[in-house]
Amino acid sequence: MNSFGNIFRVSIFGESHGPSIGIIIDGAPAGIDFSELDMEDDIKRRMPRERGTTARREPDRPDIVSGIFNAKTTGAPVTIMFKNNNTISKDYERFNTIPRPGHADFTAMKKYKGFNDNRGGGHFSGRITLPLVAAGVLAKKILKGVTISSRIVEIGGKENYQSIIDEVLLSGDSVGGIIEVKLAGLPAGLGEPFFNSCESDISHIIFSVPAVKGIEFGSGFASARMKGSGHNDMIISTDGKTATNNAGGISGGITNGNDVVFRVAVKPTPSIGLAQETINIETGEIENLSINGRHDACIALRAPVIFEACAAIAMADLYLKYIIDNCWSI
Amino acid sequence: MNSFGNIFRVSIFGESHGPSIGIIIDGAPAGIDFSELDMEDDIKRRMPRERGTTARREPDRPDIVSGIFNAKTTGAPVTIMFKNNNTISKDYERFNTIPRPGHADFTAMKKYKGFNDNRGGGHFSGRITLPLVAAGVLAKKILKGVTISSRIVEIGGKENYQSIIDEVLLSGDSVGGIIEVKLAGLPAGLGEPFFNSCESDISHIIFSVPAVKGIEFGSGFASARMKGSGHNDMIISTDGKTATNNAGGISGGITNGNDVVFRVAVKPTPSIGLAQETINIETGEIENLSINGRHDACIALRAPVIFEACAAIAMADLYLKYIIDNCWSI
Amino acid sequence: MNSFGNIFRVSIFGESHGPSIGIIIDGAPAGIDFSELDMEDDIKRRMPRERGTTARREPDRPDIVSGIFNAKTTGAPVTIMFKNNNTISKDYERFNTIPRPGHADFTAMKKYKGFNDNRGGGHFSGRITLPLVAAGVLAKKILKGVTISSRIVEIGGKENYQSIIDEVLLSGDSVGGIIEVKLAGLPAGLGEPFFNSCESDISHIIFSVPAVKGIEFGSGFASARMKGSGHNDMIISTDGKTATNNAGGISGGITNGNDVVFRVAVKPTPSIGLAQETINIETGEIENLSINGRHDACIALRAPVIFEACAAIAMADLYLKYIIDNCWSI
Amino acid sequence: MNSFGNIFRVSIFGESHGPSIGIIIDGAPAGIDFSELDMEDDIKRRMPRERGTTARREPDRPDIVSGIFNAKTTGAPVTIMFKNNNTISKDYERFNTIPRPGHADFTAMKKYKGFNDNRGGGHFSGRITLPLVAAGVLAKKILKGVTISSRIVEIGGKENYQSIIDEVLLSGDSVGGIIEVKLAGLPAGLGEPFFNSCESDISHIIFSVPAVKGIEFGSGFASARMKGSGHNDMIISTDGKTATNNAGGISGGITNGNDVVFRVAVKPTPSIGLAQETINIETGEIENLSINGRHDACIALRAPVIFEACAAIAMADLYLKYIIDNCWSI
Repeated sequence: MNSFGNIFRVSIFGESHGPSIGIIIDGAPAGIDFSELDMEDDIKRRMPRERGTTARREPDRPDIVSGIFNAKTTGAPVTIMFKNNNTISKDYERFNTIPRPGHADFTAMKKYKGFNDNRGGGHFSGRITLPLVAAGVLAKKILKGVTISSRIVEIGGKENYQSIIDEVLLSGDSVGGIIEVKLAGLPAGLGEPFFNSCESDISHIIFSVPAVKGIEFGSGFASARMKGSGHNDMIISTDGKTATNNAGGISGGITNGNDVVFRVAVKPTPSIGLAQETINIETGEIENLSINGRHDACIALRAPVIFEACAAIAMADLYLKYIIDNCWSI
Repeated sequence: MNSFGNIFRVSIFGESHGPSIGIIIDGAPAGIDFSELDMEDDIKRRMPRERGTTARREPDRPDIVSGIFNAKTTGAPVTIMFKNNNTISKDYERFNTIPRPGHADFTAMKKYKGFNDNRGGGHFSGRITLPLVAAGVLAKKILKGVTISSRIVEIGGKENYQSIIDEVLLSGDSVGGIIEVKLAGLPAGLGEPFFNSCESDISHIIFSVPAVKGIEFGSGFASARMKGSGHNDMIISTDGKTATNNAGGISGGITNGNDVVFRVAVKPTPSIGLAQETINIETGEIENLSINGRHDACIALRAPVIFEACAAIAMADLYLKYIIDNCWSI
Repeated sequence: MNSFGNIFRVSIFGESHGPSIGIIIDGAPAGIDFSELDMEDDIKRRMPRERGTTARREPDRPDIVSGIFNAKTTGAPVTIMFKNNNTISKDYERFNTIPRPGHADFTAMKKYKGFNDNRGGGHFSGRITLPLVAAGVLAKKILKGVTISSRIVEIGGKENYQSIIDEVLLSGDSVGGIIEVKLAGLPAGLGEPFFNSCESDISHIIFSVPAVKGIEFGSGFASARMKGSGHNDMIISTDGKTATNNAGGISGGITNGNDVVFRVAVKPTPSIGLAQETINIETGEIENLSINGRHDACIALRAPVIFEACAAIAMADLYLKYIIDNCWSI
Repeated sequence: MNSFGNIFRVSIFGESHGPSIGIIIDGAPAGIDFSELDMEDDIKRRMPRERGTTARREPDRPDIVSGIFNAKTTGAPVTIMFKNNNTISKDYERFNTIPRPGHADFTAMKKYKGFNDNRGGGHFSGRITLPLVAAGVLAKKILKGVTISSRIVEIGGKENYQSIIDEVLLSGDSVGGIIEVKLAGLPAGLGEPFFNSCESDISHIIFSVPAVKGIEFGSGFASARMKGSGHNDMIISTDGKTATNNAGGISGGITNGNDVVFRVAVKPTPSIGLAQETINIETGEIENLSINGRHDACIALRAPVIFEACAAIAMADLYLKYIIDNCWSI
């Protein structure tokens, strides 16, 4: 169940502290220019840089293993891998017995009966989003003429958030945030009614990213407080452009020619320096737990490019389906 | 692309004003008691009853066509159908030329090049949620010992909403709302990391329901304003019970033994009696449009049982996968 | 698991003696002319007519329930149903206790713990191939410019088989046969390397038809006795035409521009009038069993149009994928 | 489209002359002992050893990249990779212009518009069966109590084939053969009616292996010449054991408790030393082509362990589904 997509399909693998992590991208048309260099920018954008991001430093150099020949896609599955170098695993053994609050320790242990590799979160680690970002670069190339952008809407409830970052760093705490993603230039007609609506596919992959707690499109939760007369977007041109964009660029699950816009809520990093209580599964005793190791005080800071990649992967899949709808002729 | 689920899979079909609509449910184990009677309650809950719901009256009598023998599932695909009786189609022809704001008229026309059946919204109609509710009844039976409930959190921003309903009925307007769904009694261990996280699967099917603009799990969007120390749910018993439930019962994409809780934002019904402007695709002129026909002034009122069904369908699929994880032994 | 196809996907449902059987066809492009009339010829070809076919007579009138508007596909799932009228079910109860040799009685009972509907073979019945034939008609329309034909190669080892039919009818026995299917006019480039090779997809759906024991493409089993120098098809024109067609029109899993040719082995009908011995599951005693009821003495006689439909469905799916490969451009 | 399986799913990647090839195995339960050592025997069985197999020598050392921790499956996707060392690529450039008879050169070029990596056959190479064999080892471990064996039935029509091998080696020709695979110890109840019949799934993956031209189960093509009275397998014990096994262990698509038996026809290696004629796509002239490079004069010799792996992968997928059928209880 580690695959996403019908025509443009990605399959991820790897653990945070394993030898390497990677992704297979299936369904990319042949002839697209693609090389390690193309991924440099987006991978950099995901790297921890500013205050509030982890001290773990990885070169994150992508290694294209298959599917590319003469710097172009061949039509065969594209495999991209990343080595894990900077791993410190001594800490994690105990977390199967003393599960960390807000982490997957307990559920992973339950699901996999303790056989899971919990070092660094194993296959549950946010590190697995790195291959997603790499795949996103190829997906963006499939979405010709589409511009994908993202921004931090707020951190800890503030647009101007630097002081909050300082605060949580000082206190050994963490904080959440909201990210907005926008796709401009998508033609009208992508997506399916019902089960493969644009919202269904985008939310599906966005919620696969650790720490996501909510997603809304266009007017989102605010729409629940609105009246139809105020919410309906008046169509003002024959190509479907609307005066407002409460729909978030999607009507009936299908792109309507306006910008696709959605916002994602990211919870505060569960790993904090502050002491917390949790239960010892073996003894049944409540224990004190303080988590050392290197973590992001605010993962939301690194999320924008990840959500861009998710959106690109979901829409690239629908775009290839759209080619059928469009090129088919009796 | 009208199917959802990997093991427990539903496939929908039909149009609002076609002869009938229905659903195929594949993957239900053999031997489950199931008959038309079992669906009566949930189907009733979806029916328009209170003020603010449509005047369209359908008997909504389910007809089991396959997969049931001696009032039990046989293991073969279960097909349930509903006749459409009370249809008035004269209105719709023009909506391919004069697309209604907030509707799928424009996108459906674009995607299907005008070949779509737009009578009553065709395959995009909220009526297609009726078979989902029927399938939800069977899904709930697979989720043994699980209690699924739902409630209207607010309509038009108010917990006590009856006055708003009166207001929009009077003005020929419509209004949105927020629904909360809770699943109690799920074991820990359902769901997959990444692409088949509980949130991914639930959001995927929830966003297939027309008019949904957002979804959040547990603390949801509020988590973006919280600190890790306040957000982490302290584990207080060896079975994973937590003191708080900001996680919404899901950690790392997998159920953690606490109640699964999510909230859904439903936009106001796009069909309103008030006059609106939209473009005439053929002439390029802005025209005045007022929509007669019978519609819900607030679809959110009918949504709770639909979202319950969606959650049940998504979790039944993950529950069958969970049986493998659990029953497997070396 | 009752669906087949990635883009053009069919899902079947129904039992031999249930109220009706049917199929959902998802992924057909919008705008294709399609009506009940279009299915008449192929459905007739499947009907029992000549000596050696069952006495069961069904009108087999297709009822299009969804996806067609103004006699054209709308892009929404197309559902086609058939009523079961002429059913005689009294015989079947006992077959869960006294499984018929060569039938699915024993395996269905084991798999479904006795909850299966075994009347007329239930969901295992050859009758379920009727909806496949109906779907095949639509699939053939997607394969523009492609001519699909089929022929009986031999029955009971004889090209001229009528005497054998007489013989088995007289003795209350049954006989098998070999069918050949040919697809002419397919462009080069359909299919995928490895898991979605044309042979993989065609064999997958062909083996879903009851009574099929083998399939071979082009030179097939004879190739095992050949030398490479004699087997390789010399390419004689720039469009890929070859002097011979040992490849059966497929190279590396992909159509090469020559006729796609395959042969299917159909076993003799397991239901025979002659007395047979089988075990009584409850008593453990060997019992004498003679099967009345109405059956085909040679199902192979009715199989050609069914295999045509299977081939059309499999290739239509690959054809829609081919559209992407072909229409994509940087 | 490079994935196979619903619950136990494999995804392959890589090219014959790329840096490495590999496979992701998704859906393996947690806790299964698995290490590089476990794969040694089957990988050895696939290696070219006897007369008539290629001179290309690869260490074929499997590298487990993910999904294994403390020599056990973790439940996360298992990735296994193999380096390509011994590659000689100078020959292949021209084959996009002068396609080799019996090869995928022409179809790959057509499908991928010349962007395909044709070195050593690229992604179409038989070398990609190596990761399949590795995955087969894990699949065999899921099929507890099942014994999978295979044998060469004939080469070039002879059971005693060594002389034919000598003959084709001398003449620079190649020859085909027939392989039989047997699975003993499978419980009754694996597989689905229709689209996921055991035959459908096994044939699907078997035909993904290059050079396969046909497959038959049990009596196979011989059944077409048989009468029902001679073909039906008499059931002689309450666990479904039959006196004969014309069914090949499968009734109605579902295992019946007897040995699953199938035979596969493998064509002669298309690469031969003898001069052949083919067309030059650019000039349209017929050219003389003689293929140097290192090839198997009879690939059938190396196929048995590959087909075992294919059968194991297909049946492991159905076995996990069978666990649901079996462990489910009201």
